[in-house]
Amino acid sequence: MSLGEFDLIERVRRFADHPAALGLADDAALLDGLVITHDSIAEGVHFLPADPPASVGWKLVAVNLSDLAAKGANPLAALLSLTIAGDGEWEELFLGGIEAACESYGLALIGGDTISLPADSARVLGMTAIGRAGEAMPKRSGGRLGDKLWLVGNVGDSAAGLAQLIADPRAVGPLVDIYRRPIPLIALGKLLAPHANAMMDVSDGLLIDAARLARASGCAARIDLDAISLSEPFRDLRGDGLEERMFAATGGDDYALLAALPPGLDAALILSSLSPPSLACVGTLRAGQGISLVGDGGRAIELPEHLGHEHRGISGSPVADRP
Amino acid sequence: MSLGEFDLIERVRRFADHPAALGLADDAALLDGLVITHDSIAEGVHFLPADPPASVGWKLVAVNLSDLAAKGANPLAALLSLTIAGDGEWEELFLGGIEAACESYGLALIGGDTISLPADSARVLGMTAIGRAGEAMPKRSGGRLGDKLWLVGNVGDSAAGLAQLIADPRAVGPLVDIYRRPIPLIALGKLLAPHANAMMDVSDGLLIDAARLARASGCAARIDLDAISLSEPFRDLRGDGLEERMFAATGGDDYALLAALPPGLDAALILSSLSPPSLACVGTLRAGQGISLVGDGGRAIELPEHLGHEHRGISGSPVADRP
Repeated sequence: MSLGEFDLIERVRRFADHPAALGLADDAALLDGLVITHDSIAEGVHFLPADPPASVGWKLVAVNLSDLAAKGANPLAALLSLTIAGDGEWEELFLGGIEAACESYGLALIGGDTISLPADSARVLGMTAIGRAGEAMPKRSGGRLGDKLWLVGNVGDSAAGLAQLIADPRAVGPLVDIYRRPIPLIALGKLLAPHANAMMDVSDGLLIDAARLARASGCAARIDLDAISLSEPFRDLRGDGLEERMFAATGGDDYALLAALPPGLDAALILSSLSPPSLACVGTLRAGQGISLVGDGGRAIELPEHLGHEHRGISGSPVADRP
Repeated sequence: MSLGEFDLIERVRRFADHPAALGLADDAALLDGLVITHDSIAEGVHFLPADPPASVGWKLVAVNLSDLAAKGANPLAALLSLTIAGDGEWEELFLGGIEAACESYGLALIGGDTISLPADSARVLGMTAIGRAGEAMPKRSGGRLGDKLWLVGNVGDSAAGLAQLIADPRAVGPLVDIYRRPIPLIALGKLLAPHANAMMDVSDGLLIDAARLARASGCAARIDLDAISLSEPFRDLRGDGLEERMFAATGGDDYALLAALPPGLDAALILSSLSPPSLACVGTLRAGQGISLVGDGGRAIELPEHLGHEHRGISGSPVADRP
């Protein structure tokens, strides 16, 4: 008997039947009005051994906060799972990044655990983040037929920055900065949550995450690649043709938000007080299942082999598999 | 600059100043009436690569539940941090152990994360456990001068079982069972909590944990090695002389509870409805600092070089350093 990651999660789902688990369909649980999420990152899988330790600390906080943002929750507290490999200098710098991110977003570190690792083991760092639920918490499964899919924040920047670093470890610039110090969209998530039928953060790639939202909501998703907004640094470096848009839509590590809004609602109006970094209506929830793409002015586009990263590991790893 | 584990925890303490953190002096945080703890275990440090995966799963739940027991909390929910190394068969069996322990203690699995590891990395498995606080939550720091130190549950069994396994990987018997399937003392902890000035679970060794409780409470601790109750299987295998008592008092991995009670209170009466597996008054909180030992009928005993395991890692690892 041999089980892949997907099967293992199904195995867990069999006994994770408490209402607070939300069927494990979301990246967070809801218990006593608290939104609770846990994300771990492993060296060589989710970050590069040569990444500055402070940026790895920042990223661990950001990846958890992005899950809270997608549920419209207010950051409250976190527990850190710290492993020590070596002499502790790396970890000291890593903690500086944790502290900076926690202070930036009002997340209080209230506990955790510190353990040492055997020699030559990859660092594994984890965080449990806890937020206060807002007036409404959009689940991944609440999308309805006809809902418009809104993308808040750019996609592709982090994957492009990572590709730069893999080509040249000394690479610098705005895309490398975004790969290393992503910004979780907490305030935008809180503003959007009461209006969204469904919401999630885009962490594994827009296409795979849109497919997940659609599946959880019992719908199909159509995504218009032309509608995806690309950042200026991304366009300057890679261009904005169909191939580059596909790269951006499958790259992952994005910290953007994907929200399903009723067709009559305009996300730009809802978010107007915050001037979001970028906002686009990129698709629709339709009858059926699966995901379909259009691009090049409405032409049907074939799905790529990989829609994104499966569970940030195994079949596709942002760090290990990137070109 | 190079920091050890202790320094790193001090580094974290500098910014973990939220009241819910309890100064990081306890193994748990208290937020909104919820007691929250996180413990991770690493292959080759906290468990043997050859340990049955289901028992590793059981143990990860038990180590977290033991922290809840020490705070008198009612188990409520947990998030699992699962890493996948290899083909998933090990993890499938591991999840069976998680499920068995969660069901045994009414702990609902409500979320978590699954990531893959690079090849040849040690498995790192983590759990955040959440309990409902009872009417009173004893902190580690609440002990007072003159308090009696009560030990609930035996010490030394798990360390003795591990020593058997290291000598012979095919070893079986009650001590191996206790090493593999420890029992967190949830019901006893709940009963004791309202009466205890301070309480913690003994996980790194009775002596080091008693020293920690005393330090947090601004006292010294005196422990009477003669008073420590040893299990029948332990005595049958190793005897009950001073050397064996020292082994039991420093072995760690015990899942016992150590409570500071006012001198007028008898823990046996408080716990009489539950017939605890073993219960002994093993010491006193006194003026001063540090820990002192008596044994062999009240004779002063020199402190051993290691009082237990420092933070379950680095300077002393239950698995890696055991004779």
